[in-house]
Amino acid sequence: MDRGRVEAFSDGVFAVAITLLALNLAVAGPGNGPLLHQLAHQWPAFASYVVSFFMIGIVWVNHHSLFRQFSHVDRMLLFANLLLLLFVVAIPFATATLADYLLSGGQDARVAGALYALVLEGMALSFTVMFAHAVRSGLLKVSIPREDWRAVILRFGVGSLVYLVAFALAFVWAPLVLIVAGLTALYYVFERVSIEDGPSVETGGPD
Amino acid sequence: MDRGRVEAFSDGVFAVAITLLALNLAVAGPGNGPLLHQLAHQWPAFASYVVSFFMIGIVWVNHHSLFRQFSHVDRMLLFANLLLLLFVVAIPFATATLADYLLSGGQDARVAGALYALVLEGMALSFTVMFAHAVRSGLLKVSIPREDWRAVILRFGVGSLVYLVAFALAFVWAPLVLIVAGLTALYYVFERVSIEDGPSVETGGPD
Amino acid sequence: MDRGRVEAFSDGVFAVAITLLALNLAVAGPGNGPLLHQLAHQWPAFASYVVSFFMIGIVWVNHHSLFRQFSHVDRMLLFANLLLLLFVVAIPFATATLADYLLSGGQDARVAGALYALVLEGMALSFTVMFAHAVRSGLLKVSIPREDWRAVILRFGVGSLVYLVAFALAFVWAPLVLIVAGLTALYYVFERVSIEDGPSVETGGPD
Amino acid sequence: MDRGRVEAFSDGVFAVAITLLALNLAVAGPGNGPLLHQLAHQWPAFASYVVSFFMIGIVWVNHHSLFRQFSHVDRMLLFANLLLLLFVVAIPFATATLADYLLSGGQDARVAGALYALVLEGMALSFTVMFAHAVRSGLLKVSIPREDWRAVILRFGVGSLVYLVAFALAFVWAPLVLIVAGLTALYYVFERVSIEDGPSVETGGPD
Repeated sequence: MDRGRVEAFSDGVFAVAITLLALNLAVAGPGNGPLLHQLAHQWPAFASYVVSFFMIGIVWVNHHSLFRQFSHVDRMLLFANLLLLLFVVAIPFATATLADYLLSGGQDARVAGALYALVLEGMALSFTVMFAHAVRSGLLKVSIPREDWRAVILRFGVGSLVYLVAFALAFVWAPLVLIVAGLTALYYVFERVSIEDGPSVETGGPD
Repeated sequence: MDRGRVEAFSDGVFAVAITLLALNLAVAGPGNGPLLHQLAHQWPAFASYVVSFFMIGIVWVNHHSLFRQFSHVDRMLLFANLLLLLFVVAIPFATATLADYLLSGGQDARVAGALYALVLEGMALSFTVMFAHAVRSGLLKVSIPREDWRAVILRFGVGSLVYLVAFALAFVWAPLVLIVAGLTALYYVFERVSIEDGPSVETGGPD
Repeated sequence: MDRGRVEAFSDGVFAVAITLLALNLAVAGPGNGPLLHQLAHQWPAFASYVVSFFMIGIVWVNHHSLFRQFSHVDRMLLFANLLLLLFVVAIPFATATLADYLLSGGQDARVAGALYALVLEGMALSFTVMFAHAVRSGLLKVSIPREDWRAVILRFGVGSLVYLVAFALAFVWAPLVLIVAGLTALYYVFERVSIEDGPSVETGGPD
Repeated sequence: MDRGRVEAFSDGVFAVAITLLALNLAVAGPGNGPLLHQLAHQWPAFASYVVSFFMIGIVWVNHHSLFRQFSHVDRMLLFANLLLLLFVVAIPFATATLADYLLSGGQDARVAGALYALVLEGMALSFTVMFAHAVRSGLLKVSIPREDWRAVILRFGVGSLVYLVAFALAFVWAPLVLIVAGLTALYYVFERVSIEDGPSVETGGPD
């Protein structure tokens, strides 16, 4: 089964989901106070738009990087990929809810933060499931020694731990979830770069 | 006529339709009761989101599998494909209506369930029409013996029977439609796997 | 300049526009009368959804057919293509307006019908402009004799006459616009088939 | 890293963003005055739709032209491209806000115009950043002499100056922003043509 159309379909879903994020940016229109105040009041919407945009963007980049290492895909991978997309598509909803409730304080802000963290957690876990399946089923172009499976998969799965922490932090102060997500996006940029600089999955290390 | 651009267009429609499903997940915002209650109250929206996501996902996978078996496409197939997409695109609407009315009880819940089943039925029938046309017009890479046409087409058409049953069950209890749809998604996963394990359309049997 | 990415971008726009048509199908939700009545009352939305879906589908098929005949594209063609897409993207708006006002009677129904016809007219004219530019600038794989230019371009442009008639008919009875659009979709199916059966642009006739 | 999937993803985002522009065109429906008055009253929505459609279209064309000159892409370029898309995706929001407030006069119209100019400015700057990175990191198929870097990059960056002017003009009269954007679209058409006619980046000049 060729991977081209899976990538094309996934790219389409990523592209629509990342664009739908902007639907959260609407202002109420004339007759609802000065526009400048409305915009200023919407800073949670803008902040969460930027963070979520780069979250989806990073996942797309990683998706891209991962699929390039596949020699082929199987049916199980298609479903793991669908599971990943299920959470990606839910991000605009989680983002809108977070933006709406970020400043409401109390229980609601915490619930919104936790919901956002859960969706990211689901996305990270699905990504790890997809990667683990690919490693174990020999879908990668290079064969990874069985003794390295655990380490390689754990490194991919590190994001899921971060989002669990973010989930916990949501109950301390909801905006922490946004901050952790933003930092995670930055982490993934450098983490991936370090993979490519050091002995990598793609080239295979000497050990 | 090459099949590449038909696939690209169809992938785009599938990707947009599957992503628009998430538009149904919005909460009403601050001032409408505790967020946790709103989310809990929305379980029909979440349940139908997951089921519809995988329904569209399965159809996409089957679409993918089917088109890979085409040697070429003709104009009639383009229109059969458009008919299929007409129903795929209507799924977010049917899903939103089902989610809104699932718990309303009485006549409305039954109508919403029946509407959802009808859209799936239309999708399944269009898929069967497309497949039957491909079989009879020799668009497949392998030529299927004329005596096998009926059996092969009937197997593709089995989904339409299931959705007719779902339509009837909607008048018993609306949530049954969602349950049947979810089980059908699971069925298609295994049904397709069994095709690929046994003598398949793609490899051709010994007879 | 290769035509692949123009097709990919156009396919994306067609796919999103055709899918956004379904946003017009929403019902008002519980507390707005029996669902069956709401659905029945929405027949203009369903009818215009089906007609517009096939209108966009037909234009996509023709776009597909036309681009397959291009040996290359130039910058002017990109802008003619953008103009075409400008009208394609406006179809969901025109469709929603037509559906909302189709049964309102009086001036409003006529205006909505005329608006719908104008958007289709703009689409048809843009398509003709694009085709005419391709013929005159030698972008087609086959060179069309200069004495056939007018006939070939006129045949492409016949749709624009139909939509002018539809525009006029809108002032008689708004639903006539939908009927004419539906019939035009059917016409294009057969018209194109006849091109492919007889001496065609693609194969070149003996005369 | 191959550029194909970056283009596919970007095309998807461009296609969705350009199509979402049309969501701003909705009328309020029956019971809100004569439809013809509603449509006439919405001329700012139509005007800003057309201008923004061509703004996104032009950026897509330039994106297309630029990527064709890349021999390969690196990770940094992916993120610069994401930054560009972040602003592209925000255009429908800025367009809707501009259309809503264009005629409101006073402070609000100026703010809406300034917001629109800022989003375009962000887009132009991201485009320049992406181009500058490509020039300096040798991602282009032709190597540009180091002494020409500044001139080549400045030419790309000219748009950003125009949008700064538009930003300032917003405080004089908000519609000027739309007019400047429309003229800029026209400018880019001819500017690019002149590149292709004269000694160009792609073919390389005699020096």
